[in-house]
Amino acid sequence: MRFSAAIDLGGTNIGAGIVGEDGSLVFNISVPVEDNSSPSALIGQIAEAVRLGAEGAGLCLSELSYIGVGIPGISSGREGNVIFAPNIFWRNVDISAELKELTGLPVLLGNDADCAALGEYNFGAGRDYESMLMLTLGTGVGGAIVAGGKLFKGFGEHAGEFGHVPLVHNGVHCGCGKNGCFEAYCSATALKRQTRAAAMEHPESLIWEMCGGDLNNVGGRTAFDAADRGDITGAAVADQYISYLADGISGFVNVLRPSVVIIGGGVSNQGASLIDPLNEKVARLCYSHESVEPPRVIKAALGNKAGIIGAGMLGFWKE
Amino acid sequence: MRFSAAIDLGGTNIGAGIVGEDGSLVFNISVPVEDNSSPSALIGQIAEAVRLGAEGAGLCLSELSYIGVGIPGISSGREGNVIFAPNIFWRNVDISAELKELTGLPVLLGNDADCAALGEYNFGAGRDYESMLMLTLGTGVGGAIVAGGKLFKGFGEHAGEFGHVPLVHNGVHCGCGKNGCFEAYCSATALKRQTRAAAMEHPESLIWEMCGGDLNNVGGRTAFDAADRGDITGAAVADQYISYLADGISGFVNVLRPSVVIIGGGVSNQGASLIDPLNEKVARLCYSHESVEPPRVIKAALGNKAGIIGAGMLGFWKE
Repeated sequence: MRFSAAIDLGGTNIGAGIVGEDGSLVFNISVPVEDNSSPSALIGQIAEAVRLGAEGAGLCLSELSYIGVGIPGISSGREGNVIFAPNIFWRNVDISAELKELTGLPVLLGNDADCAALGEYNFGAGRDYESMLMLTLGTGVGGAIVAGGKLFKGFGEHAGEFGHVPLVHNGVHCGCGKNGCFEAYCSATALKRQTRAAAMEHPESLIWEMCGGDLNNVGGRTAFDAADRGDITGAAVADQYISYLADGISGFVNVLRPSVVIIGGGVSNQGASLIDPLNEKVARLCYSHESVEPPRVIKAALGNKAGIIGAGMLGFWKE
Repeated sequence: MRFSAAIDLGGTNIGAGIVGEDGSLVFNISVPVEDNSSPSALIGQIAEAVRLGAEGAGLCLSELSYIGVGIPGISSGREGNVIFAPNIFWRNVDISAELKELTGLPVLLGNDADCAALGEYNFGAGRDYESMLMLTLGTGVGGAIVAGGKLFKGFGEHAGEFGHVPLVHNGVHCGCGKNGCFEAYCSATALKRQTRAAAMEHPESLIWEMCGGDLNNVGGRTAFDAADRGDITGAAVADQYISYLADGISGFVNVLRPSVVIIGGGVSNQGASLIDPLNEKVARLCYSHESVEPPRVIKAALGNKAGIIGAGMLGFWKE
């Protein structure tokens, strides 16, 4: 069996894995981003993560077919440059050449959300559906449609930027340069910001206790966990966040009507306390919901591994 | 040559035409909706409009192949019922049976925005483009994608409701039941509402003079016309409206990347005072606009006739 190295390149962590051509993930690790002062510094850490992955799987680099990299942004094609990846501050970075130089392996690029969606569609929560919209709620928001086994890539280059659809006209600033994007309200980063802002207004909230009095420790689960313990502020943050998410999802559904909506990324780990109220809201917001049943929203099944598996399969799958 | 009767069913007017199978519009009229107290009352007026159209074209009803109806909502298929058409207050109306009873002609239904888009793509402003998004800004907002000569209908029934994508989370109420939809800010109805609200706040505005002191006379052009005459309030309304429109369009572009965006409906008649600033704003709002040129926004070429021609062609085109 052939193997590849797979990289899932996030804003805070680098996921690395060794993937078999049958979709099996034989080894994987996640290492924190230590130095993002330049693209080359980050590419050095990626190469090191690939080495660690190969070592963990008991393989030499030369036994790998390629490195598949899921990037949080857009590239000029599978064998090209990263054109724009705002969350890691990259613009026009020739990762393929640099990473090949460091590892001797060919490099294939895919959008990280596309990679995760192909992983979930083929091996995860999307297996039983004809079409799916996958939304990955992490540092940013990735989105991808898979229908009939293929990525739907829209009608021109760089379609599929679901994170950058307006949700709150003239709302908070987004990394893409405009204001009020879905990503600016529904990413894990946004949820943490909303949690911190609510805690600042409510000194009595349990959120303070849960983060040890330091709001830098607020995570994507803090508001939900506080809500579970009866905290009104935490419950209000969670409800507001779910409202944003439901509103955005209803818009995507009204235009595209996928058979199912799959939520991935760290936020999806909330499970039922996120998914159940989200489904209730989405069902009420979709156009003509009395006549046409809206798609269900379900949790991704592969967790962080969807992106790794999808990135690792980039060269084994036919495009 | 075969001919059809075509109906473009809006909230305020019924457009009727006689269309040749080559796409020629041999006669057309527009009659105001006089009685919308019940679906049957409106269907009676539609039948009368078909008769007037046939008479104007010098044809008998029996010389027509069918009646093609562009409906402002969703239907259960080309030969089915209207399921939901909020702007004319219809839900589950069997227009096909009633209209056939009144005219003796078979009836084919299409979404009005789809009809207009097919008309523009084949005979109008979309002729030179591989893919297009058409947005029809009228009583409501219709949207449709045509790519490679075919309507893109999304992945499930009743996709393509571009008017019901959120633009202002928890914003003003929309006819679809939710709040803050693109339609609730960018339809001609919304523009009139915005114009009236601004005039109420600014008694010194020229808008008052232009509508003879009665805000019921405010139309979709009033704010733009006032702006042209130097009125600050009119200019602010126009600028705000264009900002809403640009933000919404940038979201559609970020997801779908059509080759061109075509604006139809009454509002598009503003011409350059709408289209030029709209293009400037859209170009700045689209994702990665420094790297990837955003599509241009252009005015529809066929005016109201796009919908009529598209509806008239429903049976002559293969689906």
